[in-house]
Amino acid sequence: MSEARPQPCEAIRRLTPYTPPTSGRQGQARHDFNENTVGCSPRVAERLREIATADFLATYPEYESARAKFAEFYGVGADQVLISDGTDEAILVLLNTFCEPGDEVLMPWPTFPMFRFYAETVSAKPVRVSYREPDLAFPTEELIGAITAKTRAVLIASPNNPTGGGIGLDTVEQILEAAPRTAVLIDEAYFEFYGVTAIELIPKYSNLFVSRTFSKAYGLAGVRVGCLLSQSENVASMLKGQSPYSVTSVGIVCALAAIEDQDYVQRYVDEVLKARIELIVALDELGVAHYPTDANFVLAQFGDRAGSIYEALKAKEILVRPRSGEIPGTIRITVGTQAQTARVINALREAM
Amino acid sequence: MSEARPQPCEAIRRLTPYTPPTSGRQGQARHDFNENTVGCSPRVAERLREIATADFLATYPEYESARAKFAEFYGVGADQVLISDGTDEAILVLLNTFCEPGDEVLMPWPTFPMFRFYAETVSAKPVRVSYREPDLAFPTEELIGAITAKTRAVLIASPNNPTGGGIGLDTVEQILEAAPRTAVLIDEAYFEFYGVTAIELIPKYSNLFVSRTFSKAYGLAGVRVGCLLSQSENVASMLKGQSPYSVTSVGIVCALAAIEDQDYVQRYVDEVLKARIELIVALDELGVAHYPTDANFVLAQFGDRAGSIYEALKAKEILVRPRSGEIPGTIRITVGTQAQTARVINALREAM
Repeated sequence: MSEARPQPCEAIRRLTPYTPPTSGRQGQARHDFNENTVGCSPRVAERLREIATADFLATYPEYESARAKFAEFYGVGADQVLISDGTDEAILVLLNTFCEPGDEVLMPWPTFPMFRFYAETVSAKPVRVSYREPDLAFPTEELIGAITAKTRAVLIASPNNPTGGGIGLDTVEQILEAAPRTAVLIDEAYFEFYGVTAIELIPKYSNLFVSRTFSKAYGLAGVRVGCLLSQSENVASMLKGQSPYSVTSVGIVCALAAIEDQDYVQRYVDEVLKARIELIVALDELGVAHYPTDANFVLAQFGDRAGSIYEALKAKEILVRPRSGEIPGTIRITVGTQAQTARVINALREAM
Repeated sequence: MSEARPQPCEAIRRLTPYTPPTSGRQGQARHDFNENTVGCSPRVAERLREIATADFLATYPEYESARAKFAEFYGVGADQVLISDGTDEAILVLLNTFCEPGDEVLMPWPTFPMFRFYAETVSAKPVRVSYREPDLAFPTEELIGAITAKTRAVLIASPNNPTGGGIGLDTVEQILEAAPRTAVLIDEAYFEFYGVTAIELIPKYSNLFVSRTFSKAYGLAGVRVGCLLSQSENVASMLKGQSPYSVTSVGIVCALAAIEDQDYVQRYVDEVLKARIELIVALDELGVAHYPTDANFVLAQFGDRAGSIYEALKAKEILVRPRSGEIPGTIRITVGTQAQTARVINALREAM
């Protein structure tokens, strides 16, 4: 007989927890979570200091004018924007809106762990379709072949995390057309490093959802703001079940200030793309295999040495992310500025 | 045949939306959402300006040290604390953890609208037990009588919103003992104005959950921080399904700075309690009935005049909250400082 206390429901009992190692990172070189490694635009911090008054903090967030501004930035209508507590909440709201318990949620694998996590928390069944060996090419035909009458959502990160590759709009359209009543999410968390977006397809496809985040290139992981874009009827359905105040007023102000300083983000992206080439060249020189990337990180294959390489970098206060759980022997390395990346490269050389 | 687009699930289709009127409140006297009407401690805003750096904002939130500090403040163990994105997320996580679809979620009625809202979003069935007429006394026996084998949660706000009354620990214990395998939430959002807390009962009852918020007396509604306290096994179950980064790093810093300035909160609470007496005396003089309150608001009964009174106050840029949807003829008035409340009283006199 079970103990006399409230017992978790079946979905929670069966859930595989997700416990990212985000403690004790201060003061270390953060090449582990694909954040902006030098921080957001100084103008954002300045704007936050301006609005950080006792009265502003005491008031419940208002979203209407922010929705209009995000909409203008993304080139969609205000009623096509759902502002979310990071992309995380966008995924949860999407699945909670469109999935019944037992429905299938399809995703290429490996991918952003939260796809699997939120599918399980809403009692849906995650269905994983493996990226193609050996280069982790996108499994378009396999994914389409796995669509069933129970597939309620298809979740795709482009560029994908942790593998790094992005897909083209032709692939996106193939999937959208194969499942017209299934919610197809293209998570563009790393869009700024890639440049290809499915947003322009929103008027054409009633089953397309595109998510963006301010946690990566924009350097605002600490304030948790994302946007989910889709046709207005879909957004209306999702807003119905979304928590009314999940996003902070501070986050809104920061995100809006961040999009006003496009020069800052563009300069950062440009430097990351240069540094990414330098990291790839160095890995080649070291004889370390790596996968094609369109994002601000590289998934590198260290084989049996992955554990010791990780420890050697950590000893130098450089944090990277082991991904052996998904692909044995791999480590995901966030690309920072050229100077930061040079430090990683030197540490890798010494470690090997 | 339904349109060829993803269709919302049954729970979302049936959900009654909750759309609080939180737009366009700037510059007006905010007596509508029970916030701290003068803002958080100036020390909190100062602390936020100190930490508002590009690097801080760019980094994913860390919660471990904050959990320990909140635990110390509430007098519980760190493993008995779940930090949440406002109390809202705490309620959602609790229901999502312990309820299967179709389970019953019991609540006195009227109460905090999010109890009903989140019960519906997790496909549970809200079961409402009316407060007793005419004084809206707490319906202890009726609530206990309504517990069935399907009751998975009991949600109680103490003091209750919008009625205002709090319950004693004897009542809390009666309910806890009547349903040992049911999650019983005591939402103490207005604790600071009441002074009675169920936290001390946590070691004794494995089915007790207590929530606190920084959105009311502490003046931090804009940054969305709450805490849910329970025995460690319950917290572990809830953490399993909680989003890993739902609370912002900015919110954490603000909440921790806020609890360090207890003098500020105590002075604010003292003044609100004086202003509450002044409002009640004025309502009596005006012949306006009102319900017993232990919180920073008063639910007043204006009968047929509720609509015109609301409009008259709004014309003077004083916002209050009509609650006729729950109890016909009522308006909920947030008590502010004595000067702010005097302005509300004068506006009421002129309107009547």
